[in-house]
Amino acid sequence: MTSIQNVVLGADCGGTNIKMAILDAKGKLIAKDLQPINYSEPAPAVVKNMADRLLRFLKANGVSRPKGLGIGIAGDVDPDKGAVRFSPNLGWSNVPLKKYLSRHLKFPIIVENDANCAAVGAYWLDAKRDCRNLVCLTLGTGVGGGIIIDGRLYRGATGSAGEIGHMTIDYKGRRCKCGNYGCTESLIGAWGIILSAQEGLARGEAPVLKKILKEPGMKLAPKAIAMAAKRGDRFCKELWNRTGEQLGCVMSNCVNIFNPERIILSGGVSKTGPLLLKPALAALKKRAFKMPVSAVKITISRYDENLGVFGAAYLLLE
Amino acid sequence: MTSIQNVVLGADCGGTNIKMAILDAKGKLIAKDLQPINYSEPAPAVVKNMADRLLRFLKANGVSRPKGLGIGIAGDVDPDKGAVRFSPNLGWSNVPLKKYLSRHLKFPIIVENDANCAAVGAYWLDAKRDCRNLVCLTLGTGVGGGIIIDGRLYRGATGSAGEIGHMTIDYKGRRCKCGNYGCTESLIGAWGIILSAQEGLARGEAPVLKKILKEPGMKLAPKAIAMAAKRGDRFCKELWNRTGEQLGCVMSNCVNIFNPERIILSGGVSKTGPLLLKPALAALKKRAFKMPVSAVKITISRYDENLGVFGAAYLLLE
Repeated sequence: MTSIQNVVLGADCGGTNIKMAILDAKGKLIAKDLQPINYSEPAPAVVKNMADRLLRFLKANGVSRPKGLGIGIAGDVDPDKGAVRFSPNLGWSNVPLKKYLSRHLKFPIIVENDANCAAVGAYWLDAKRDCRNLVCLTLGTGVGGGIIIDGRLYRGATGSAGEIGHMTIDYKGRRCKCGNYGCTESLIGAWGIILSAQEGLARGEAPVLKKILKEPGMKLAPKAIAMAAKRGDRFCKELWNRTGEQLGCVMSNCVNIFNPERIILSGGVSKTGPLLLKPALAALKKRAFKMPVSAVKITISRYDENLGVFGAAYLLLE
Repeated sequence: MTSIQNVVLGADCGGTNIKMAILDAKGKLIAKDLQPINYSEPAPAVVKNMADRLLRFLKANGVSRPKGLGIGIAGDVDPDKGAVRFSPNLGWSNVPLKKYLSRHLKFPIIVENDANCAAVGAYWLDAKRDCRNLVCLTLGTGVGGGIIIDGRLYRGATGSAGEIGHMTIDYKGRRCKCGNYGCTESLIGAWGIILSAQEGLARGEAPVLKKILKEPGMKLAPKAIAMAAKRGDRFCKELWNRTGEQLGCVMSNCVNIFNPERIILSGGVSKTGPLLLKPALAALKKRAFKMPVSAVKITISRYDENLGVFGAAYLLLE
């Protein structure tokens, strides 16, 4: 088998697995894979395991030496040192990931925050790089943010930039997991939406949702709350109206601050449909300045599961 | 008189005057002046008047041909076309300022939003350009914002970026002049602070302030409200505590989103002292992520009146 040249390797580390992809120099997919990782071992052993998975994946696809590896990690990352300062998902504190990986992988390595990788992925996949400035919001359990300025990932002074999930829009509001109050994430992240639904259920205000949750296989999650709203649950409808208004407010802040050509929404919650998007777009139009609103295009990503792992690889092609 | 070469010209247009400055190629002041302008005439006549003032100012200082003019305007500016889309302060809508000025001034002209100019001024004067990323907040009657990314003014898709004064931090809050609710400006701009004080006075809650306002020459403004707080007015003390917390929240958003090396505060309200800054810094520390907070230096500008006009000139030296 001839060795494939001139390719880049991307990886995205979730809490239980590692996603991997090989892309060519133009960013086109050659191969991808997903492998389980046991993150409970000590960090050097986990990293050795990661490296083994990556090397096997390369070998299986006839790649002996990629141009480099880009690896996305949920948490606070030091991109200069390639270290993970803190990752609650992986249970890591101050892990010199690049240093550990370099023991096994003899090619350049870039370590980056996963939401930043998703922004780079969205810039290549969803925006086709046809704009200069883009904001990407990942609406999952939490809310991740990534910012592309002038065609490049914006990292800030310590690689910590882009935390739009922890931008306050209700400063007297609910306490967020980060310690702040009224963060974007505490309101429109899935955990925030679920918490609001729990409060409604506890007050007996969401009878349709209560019924749905008794159906087999149903759990309290945005999907069930959307189903309840569609079946006429007034509380759930109102909850989506409010969540949409909050999302519109977040986008309005992004528009007034960044004046971007694109905002790309990804993640499970972004797939809720008109229940969320109609009030969101109405609030955006009502709240933001006219000129930058007229210049922004808002889209839902079609590449959710690939954004992080592709984006990590694209970092080597930037 | 020998003609002075290699200098740039800056101008800052307020609602009643034009500030002008001549700087050398290193950004050092050669001369400055302030002249009244009657903005009630038709725009072409106003611009002719501006150009006359500028030419006379150049001549008086022995400059026949500067490298260019940078001009700051309060309002929505199209920096590509050099046009003023909308300026409530000057009463202008769609004025092709650069085109009109070019009839009289035969050198390059850059038109820019005044808060953006202030950010460029703060980057040169206060930060001495020793950082890459900076946020400048002008706390005056309104709140202006300007963003320096990687050493250059960030303008966004249509030149509308940086409107941190219209970032929502209280999405169910007070209606702002821009039509949005709970904007930074509606809370910590002087007009927002004064409105809160008026509400307190109307409820009879600010007796010390009420007394102070009867003193000769006193008017309801941040200075009087600060004086009342210092003389023991509980309502005014609480108002500054709240305003400080809101400012801290705004800075926390800037830190979590931009991870800048510097935040520079300018404008009259920024000179309030510990009444405002103590709760602001406490809220910032409580609310923002630790890593980016540890990387940011927050300072009060020492060059308030020069930021806009110097910054406008610096645009030609960028």
